[in-house]
Parts: sequence; C-alpha cells; structure tokens
Amino acid sequence: MTTLRVHNLAISLDGFATGEGQALETPFGHAGHRLMDWYFPTRTFVSTSGHDAEAVGAGTRGVDDAFAAMAWQGIGAEIMGRRKFGPQQGEWEDESWRGWWGEEPPFHTPVVVLTHHPRPDLAVGETTFLFRDLPPADALALAAEQAEGLDVRLGGGPTVVREFLQAGLVDHLHFVVVPIVLGRGVRLWDGLEGIESGFDIEVTASPTGVVHYVWTRRGGVGSA
Amino acid sequence: MTTLRVHNLAISLDGFATGEGQALETPFGHAGHRLMDWYFPTRTFVSTSGHDAEAVGAGTRGVDDAFAAMAWQGIGAEIMGRRKFGPQQGEWEDESWRGWWGEEPPFHTPVVVLTHHPRPDLAVGETTFLFRDLPPADALALAAEQAEGLDVRLGGGPTVVREFLQAGLVDHLHFVVVPIVLGRGVRLWDGLEGIESGFDIEVTASPTGVVHYVWTRRGGVGSA
Repeated sequence: MTTLRVHNLAISLDGFATGEGQALETPFGHAGHRLMDWYFPTRTFVSTSGHDAEAVGAGTRGVDDAFAAMAWQGIGAEIMGRRKFGPQQGEWEDESWRGWWGEEPPFHTPVVVLTHHPRPDLAVGETTFLFRDLPPADALALAAEQAEGLDVRLGGGPTVVREFLQAGLVDHLHFVVVPIVLGRGVRLWDGLEGIESGFDIEVTASPTGVVHYVWTRRGGVGSA
Repeated sequence: MTTLRVHNLAISLDGFATGEGQALETPFGHAGHRLMDWYFPTRTFVSTSGHDAEAVGAGTRGVDDAFAAMAWQGIGAEIMGRRKFGPQQGEWEDESWRGWWGEEPPFHTPVVVLTHHPRPDLAVGETTFLFRDLPPADALALAAEQAEGLDVRLGGGPTVVREFLQAGLVDHLHFVVVPIVLGRGVRLWDGLEGIESGFDIEVTASPTGVVHYVWTRRGGVGSA
C-alpha cells in the first residue's frame, strides 16, 4: 500500500491554514508570510527554493528544519489542489501559467493537480503536472501509480487536505501551529469533528514558537 | 497596578474553549471532559477539588501540574462569567444555587460574577461571590480592590476572556491546546485577529499531548 503524507501544513491558533483574499501577489491572502515564517529560515527551504542558489548549505538545522526536510524524503509523487498550482479560477484562459516555481520546480516527480478544468500534461524541469478531475481515492490511485513504490505527498491547500482527511485516506499528517490569530481565511478543521480519534498523536514545541504535530493513522498505513 | 491573569484555559485545535449544549449535567457541553483530561490527573486538581479528600498529596507533578498550580499562586480575587457560576440564564428563579463547588469552593477569595441579573452577595465557605453587572474595566477595578494587592484571576468562560482581551486588560494568558477537533461550541479567538502582537509568547509541549502557551503582555503588566 502507498502511504499518503501531509507535511509542513501551517495553521493559525484559530485554525486557518490560509488567509482571506488569495491572489497572484498574495498566495496566502492577508496572512502574508506569517504562516510560513518558521519555514523560510530552514536549510530545507533555502536549499529547495532555488531562488538563491549561492545560499545552498545555509539555513537553520533545528527542529523546524528536521520536520521540514521530511517532506522531501521518499516521495514519488504529489497531489495538490489547483489553488496551490496557481491563482486562476474557472476555465484556463490560456496555458501560459506554469506554476509559481519557475523553470525548475522543487518537486522533481509527477504532480497530480486536482481541477475541474483539465488541461494537457505539463513538464517543467524534472516535474510533470497532470491536471485531473478526480475524487480523492482515484487521485490517490493515480498518484500511487506514478510514485512507483514510493510515498505520495498531499501538498495542499487546506481544502484538499480536508477532503482527503474526510475520506480517511491520510496516513501521516504533520501540521504546524503558528502562534497567530488570523481571524479570516480557510479553516482546516471544518467538518472534521472527532478526526483525532483515528490517529496516534505526537507533539513537539519549537524554540521558534511554532508547534509540530505528527499524527499517524491507527491501524497502520493504507488501512482505510 | 494589579496583574490580571488567565490560567488553564483549554482550547481545542479548532479554537473552541467549550462545547455546544452547556447544561447542568454538561458544563462543557458535548466536549464532556475532553478539554480538561490533562488537568484531572494533576496534583493541583486532586488537592483542590475537595471531592476526594483522601487523595490529597496524590496526582502527577509533571509540567501539566506545574502550570496548573500557578493558577492558585498570589491570587486575591477572581472574575468569572455567570456561566461558570451556574447553568441558569435570565432572571434568577430563586437563590438556592450556590455554585458547582459544594460548601467549600476552591477559591477562598472574593469572586466577582459578571451577570446582567445581580443578586445579593453570597458567602460559601471562605469564598464570597459578588454578582455585578459591570463592563470589563470596572469589574477589574472592583476585583483589584477586593484582591488587596494580590493579582486577579480571570476565570472564564471563554466569552468573558475574549471580552477582557478585546479591552486590552489581560496581562498574563496561559492557555492549553488540547489535540482534539471539537467542531462546535464557543470559539475563543473570534474578533481577536492579530491579538498576539501585543504579547510575548512562550510555548511548551507536554508529554501528555497538550501544549501550554504563556502569553505575557508587552510593555509590562497593567499597561493598558
């Protein structure tokens, strides 16, 4: 069975995983950088962002980086929502948008982009984006096939993570509570009352003020 | 200046500080005991509950107890909402209700009970309940006078804590995030967007799975 993993999903104290008003210039809406401020200093981010090649090897190596790095280990494919791929809505006006990440996206694997508006597969650097209109279980089956025995990362956004949690498909959930009150945006936990009962839970506070939660599905991976 | 302190305020991952459907039999509504399961094993609870006198001296002495105990140190008065005092609403039908705590409540100080329906002061054991219809700043002034130089504890419930936070009157906020998704109830953080900017924040994860947050008002106590 393929393991489906969520990593580095940042949530405010009031449960918002992204702010209000997402747009091209503001992928997290009014939250700005605040949900990811713990992540940017890590060696993992500095090494994968590609924007700052001379900084490879720099960055923090504390607990935030230890968790950040796990997102990239043993992954053979990703599933993401369309809003993580780009800010557009509805029909694609054209196909010039190639994602937020420039010409070498950090994924280096197939990425299944869930959208009601499919378009042709798109190769950018070592990453291939597959645009599909699929329910969660079918998306996981496709991604698992693409992953060729490795794990599948569920890359968000929060609405997509919520749908896969509701479907009982998530084996590993790493989320990071950031000590801010965001007030508005997309709530991760809506419709998930009692979801914790299906998981073993471990918690680690970072000196940076964020808290890492690791939830592991009871009964073993792929047990849905 | 008097320091106003909140202690042991338990919140679910989705931000609820109490469940839906509060009543005499269910003071936390559908949350049941789940928000306070971390608290009941502590030596502090066992020693103050009074229900189990032979157990005095028993209970855990870990980080949960260390935080729990602080609620009782250096306090000269408490402020609480009417819903913490009892399940009644509207006019008092009679005055036979003397609180949830039996004939020796754990407070041993004056307690200002905020209510739109005042009734005569009530002494129960070493605790005196003062029923008043006051806005937050005036309630704090009264409690501070009663505290005779000691600190004032803001005892909840969540609606009362939210009102005092909005008024900028809270100097010390200790809350405990419990790893459950409650789904319904009273949200602490509504209307408090950005409130964290006024506080220094420290966070400690307990081996029991809860996370203790200590917020200290920037600029010193009583600086509102």
